[in-house]
Order: sequence, then C-alpha cells, then structure tokens
Amino acid sequence: MRIERSMLADLARGAAFLGSGGGGDPYYSLLLAEAAIKRCDAFELLPLSEISDSALVAPCGWIGAPTVSVEKLPNGREAVAGLRRLETIMGRKIDAVLPIEIGGGNGLAPLIAAAELGVPVLDCDGMGRAFPESQMTIFNIRNLSACPSVLTASCGSLAVIETDDNLTHERIARSLSVALGGIAHLVEYPLTGAQAKANAIPGSVSAAFSAGAAIRNAHANSEDLFEALTQALRDTGLYPYSFTLFDGKIVDLERETRGGFSIGKVIIDGFGGQDRMEIEFQNENLIARRNGNVCAMTPDLITVMDRETADTITTEKLKYGQRVKVIGAAAPAMLREENALEFVGPVAFGLGLNYTPIEKLNARAPA
Amino acid sequence: MRIERSMLADLARGAAFLGSGGGGDPYYSLLLAEAAIKRCDAFELLPLSEISDSALVAPCGWIGAPTVSVEKLPNGREAVAGLRRLETIMGRKIDAVLPIEIGGGNGLAPLIAAAELGVPVLDCDGMGRAFPESQMTIFNIRNLSACPSVLTASCGSLAVIETDDNLTHERIARSLSVALGGIAHLVEYPLTGAQAKANAIPGSVSAAFSAGAAIRNAHANSEDLFEALTQALRDTGLYPYSFTLFDGKIVDLERETRGGFSIGKVIIDGFGGQDRMEIEFQNENLIARRNGNVCAMTPDLITVMDRETADTITTEKLKYGQRVKVIGAAAPAMLREENALEFVGPVAFGLGLNYTPIEKLNARAPA
Repeated sequence: MRIERSMLADLARGAAFLGSGGGGDPYYSLLLAEAAIKRCDAFELLPLSEISDSALVAPCGWIGAPTVSVEKLPNGREAVAGLRRLETIMGRKIDAVLPIEIGGGNGLAPLIAAAELGVPVLDCDGMGRAFPESQMTIFNIRNLSACPSVLTASCGSLAVIETDDNLTHERIARSLSVALGGIAHLVEYPLTGAQAKANAIPGSVSAAFSAGAAIRNAHANSEDLFEALTQALRDTGLYPYSFTLFDGKIVDLERETRGGFSIGKVIIDGFGGQDRMEIEFQNENLIARRNGNVCAMTPDLITVMDRETADTITTEKLKYGQRVKVIGAAAPAMLREENALEFVGPVAFGLGLNYTPIEKLNARAPA
Repeated sequence: MRIERSMLADLARGAAFLGSGGGGDPYYSLLLAEAAIKRCDAFELLPLSEISDSALVAPCGWIGAPTVSVEKLPNGREAVAGLRRLETIMGRKIDAVLPIEIGGGNGLAPLIAAAELGVPVLDCDGMGRAFPESQMTIFNIRNLSACPSVLTASCGSLAVIETDDNLTHERIARSLSVALGGIAHLVEYPLTGAQAKANAIPGSVSAAFSAGAAIRNAHANSEDLFEALTQALRDTGLYPYSFTLFDGKIVDLERETRGGFSIGKVIIDGFGGQDRMEIEFQNENLIARRNGNVCAMTPDLITVMDRETADTITTEKLKYGQRVKVIGAAAPAMLREENALEFVGPVAFGLGLNYTPIEKLNARAPA
C-alpha cells in the first residue's frame, strides 16, 4: 500500500487513539512526516507477510516523557542517525522499519526514517498500542533481545547499548533519555524478517489508518464520530471490542513528570452530576474506574477524546474543564496471553489486581 | 620500568594519597592487580616520552560514587570489555593504557587491563590526582574529545557513547553509572601518542610509587611517616609543596550519596581542643578551612590520613572518632593554569571564591 500525503492525517488520528493516552501527541510527528513525504513522494506500507525471512527489520520510536516532547522539538535527524548506526553494527542494510509502538506520535515516527532510508514501513508494531516502558513490547514478551540498540538525541549525542537483560536495557535507555533532556530516539529490538512475522502485532498500522479515516468520514458526513470509530476498530479484528466508557467533564487532574514519565490521575464527572470516572496513568492510561468500579485496565485501551471533535487527548494534554468521551477497546489477543500479562497487565504496573477483559467488565454495555 | 608484584602495595598507597580523598579506596583494585600480575609476571610502566606519536592510547578508570564501590564489587572483566570494544571501533589495537586519574583505586585500574591486553601502562594520567567529574580531566581542559567512549558494568552491560560535548558526555556517563548500580568502568578520551605526550600529566604513576614507597620505608625505619611522605612528594617535582595542614580527631561527619556522588562535610578538632578544621567534599576533598580560614582548595590536594599508619582515609571511609592528619599538596602546574581552573578550580565546584595556591595560604607553614 502506498501512503500518500493526504492519508497522513488519518494515520496520526488513528495512532493517537491507539496510544491509549500515550505515545506522545502525533502533531510534531505528523509535521515531520509531511515534510518527509515531499522528498519521497509516497511511503510504502508493506504487509508483514511480505517481508523476507532473512530481512533486517528495525523497530524504532521515541523514549521519554510525552510532557517533554511538547516543548523539546526533535532535530529531525535522530531516527536516521540511529538506524544508520545499526546498519554499521550489523554490517548490512536495513530492509524495513516499523513502529516499536503504533500509539501516538510513535506510530508515525518510522515514516520519516523510511523516507530517508528508502525502505518500506512494515504494517505491524511491537505493542499494538503504546506502553510506557521499553520491555513492554511483544518482542520482549517473546524473549527477543532489545540489543544492540542505538539511542540518539536532538543535541547529536548517540549511544549504542548492549545488554543481555531487556529490563536493564529499559533502565539504561530511560536514564539516558532523562540525561539528554527527557526525550530521545531509540532503535531497538533489531529483528530478522522471520522474527517480525512470528512476533510483531500484525496490521496495526493499517488499523490506525482505518480508525483515523472513520473519524474523518464521520465528520464529513455529520455522523456520530464515536460510533464510526468504535465500529472501525471492531472491523479491524485486531481490537474486537470497543465502546464508549464515559461521557463527561474533567474536574480534577494530578500530573507530574517523574523518573522520565508523566504520572498522574484524572477525574471526570458525568454531566448528570452523579457519575464519576477516575483514570490513573503512567504516560498511558492504565486503569479506569466508574463510580469506584474498575471498568477497563491495561493492556486494554483507554483513550480520552474531545467529545466534539473525537481528537485524542494524550495524557500530557489533559486539562481541567475539557469535555470528553472515554473510549475503551480490547487489546490485541497477543497482549492478553498469560505470559504477556506479566509484562503489560495490571500486575506489571503494581496495580494490585488481576486482569479482567474489558468486554467482561462491561458485559451490559453495547459490544 | 617493570612493576613487580611487591611494588603494587606502594602504588596503592601512593595513589590513595593522590586521590585527595577520592578515586575510591584502592583495596579492591590492589587485589585485582595482584591477581592480574600472576598471569603476566610483571607490568611495564612506560615513560610518557617513549610512546610513539601514532600510537593509540586509552585512558580508563571507574566512574561512580566511591561509597558504592565498597559494596558492589567488579566482575573483573569490565576494563577489558571496554578496551576491546574501543579497539573494534577504532579498527586497531590499543598500544598503551593510562589511568584517567592517578588518585585512589583508579590509579591501579589500568594495570589489570594492561595485563590482559599485553600493553604497557603509560607513566602519566589525566588528572594528576582524582576529580569527581569526567570533564575535569586535563584532556577536556585541552579541548580533546571524550568520545568515542565505552562504558561497561559488572552485569555485562556495555554502552558506546558519542557526543561532541564533553560535559554532555559526563552527564550521559554519570546517568549510566547510576542506572547500572552506581559504578561502572569507562574508557574515554582515546588519544594518539602525540596527544598524550602533549597533554597528559607526566610522571604521576611513578610519583604515586614514590609516595607509597616513602611511607613504607618510614614504617620500616621507624621514621616520621608524614615527613617522609611530604618530602617524597616535593622530590617528585610534580607536587612541589606539601605539608601537614592539621592534626586531630573527627568529631562530626555529614555524607550522602546524591546524583551519583558522595557529598558531605567532615569536622576535625585539634587535640588541644581549640583548633578546628572543616573539609567539604564531593567524592574528593574540595576545600579545607582551619578555624574558619581557607587553608587549601581544589585543585590542590587535601588528603585525610590515619595519624598512626599514614593510611589514606578516602571520603567514603571517614568515620566519627578517627585520629587523623590532613596533608596538603600543591597540584601539578598544568592544573593551576587559568583555563584549567575554570574546570577544576573552586569556581567549577560552585565554592564562590577565587583560587589561591596552597603555598600562599600557608606561607608560614614549613614548605
């Protein structure tokens, strides 16, 4: 599939939703992708099944607190510098790139690199959404190594990281991102084509396109934006349940940038004045409680959206007074397997409860 | 010069003194050096003038809080792993190693690497003592680049760092050392032989030998340990003034491990009960005040020693009740040049006063 310039806004909109509040607002990534597409005419999106087994495939994206990304702009060369260094280390050319996470700005980040390298973007990603930590990727869950990885920063600094332990890798990369101003670009989990095919979350880039296009079309046809979005998500097959969890106004917000993350809690009151939703986040929205009862939890998606425009409000953009709808969606099945939940379920975030799928928690809601 | 096993204790003792309280207690480095010398029979100490201009010379040592080094032991392969990686990056063999700082355990650290690589240790170092931060080396003062550098940790993790800015390099390496448990090995400021000859502090390794041997001989001959030490230092020519600044008992100590450093203040009361010395430190002793008057400041050396044994008490080993002598020594002239003081003088540590040489501050003391 060719990705034309006119399609980039759909991808940005869809990726923002799939970020579950994180991955960074895609606005700057969209601007960079629009600039990049002028140079290469169109990006190529390659179905995961079409990559050759022996190919070198490079997942990439940004690491850091989304709050920082709003103020500290990239120099635009970070991704290419990191990918070129990976080529030097591996002694061969990269054949394709993919987003380490489809969610937020990171869903678009590899486009710029793809344009520079002249390689396709694979229609897949490493998280099926966005997660705050590097080891929360399906590639770690499936025991692949994050290393060698290459971290680059807007000041031109570069670090090659090698470690056997993917959690140590996260700690190293996180501390580097903090030392280098709070955000950095990371090329990690270099894969063969065969490893990508066996482990990446397939079709997530085109799912983001579908979600974004559905909202655009609903705008154009004055249809219900959230109906269109949730229907489109269900139609992808990757996010088989999706529905509106809450409708209301943000009445309280706690948020701090700590340890390289945006951490906090948002409280949304229903317009009737009786219902209340509370969402905890660490870059991404992790758990939603409606009137004290859990109604969605990681790895299922919880996204706060502007109730008039269906624009996603990432956690760093939450503000008192915003009128919002909260949309939930079932995570891709690969993230719900028992060994995956160890890394991306509620236990991984210290939430102290077992995972219950969103469709069970909302059995009476429309599916 | 051949360094035999019997000489290692002298080097450890002398390097401990030159650490000015920092560089880490040399005890573990001594054990590692003794183990290494069994494999290679003897180390070779090469005068700086004898290295060829085109040689590849690698300064190395440990970065982190000395307080951590007491509890977290190295695996013994960190230096070799880092140096071998530098060879891969540079595409050639390393011809010689040198201590990035002669002070403390770091004065011995390159011996182990030299034994493994089969190369000599150059009789020089990058600081003429120990300093807490990487950019405080003469190589940064003289505008040489810290990169490519290689950081290795006891868990086997490795990071290659590339940045144009040596202060950013310090920030990156420091945050990595914190992320990897508080201490890591760093190969940095790779030099040509010509660059080493023009910039390194010459003769500092043999100066450490002399200082250590002087104390050992004084012990054997029941002579005054501190007379012997200060005379030996003056005789090196590198530390032209040296004398006892204070004699007393530690009556108070504040010390915390913060931002990857050991930071604090020690108070020593004279035995007469009237005089008091206060020393502030950041890994190394930075400034000494006698009865409120500054009597020594960085980059001049201030070392607290056991008054019975003349064993150096590094800042992480300071304890209430220790009976000590405080010995001062003039820093090598290269560190007292105006542009050097920007990086290693009192202003560099935010001490808010201009540098005055120790011999001027103690004009009435015996030189």
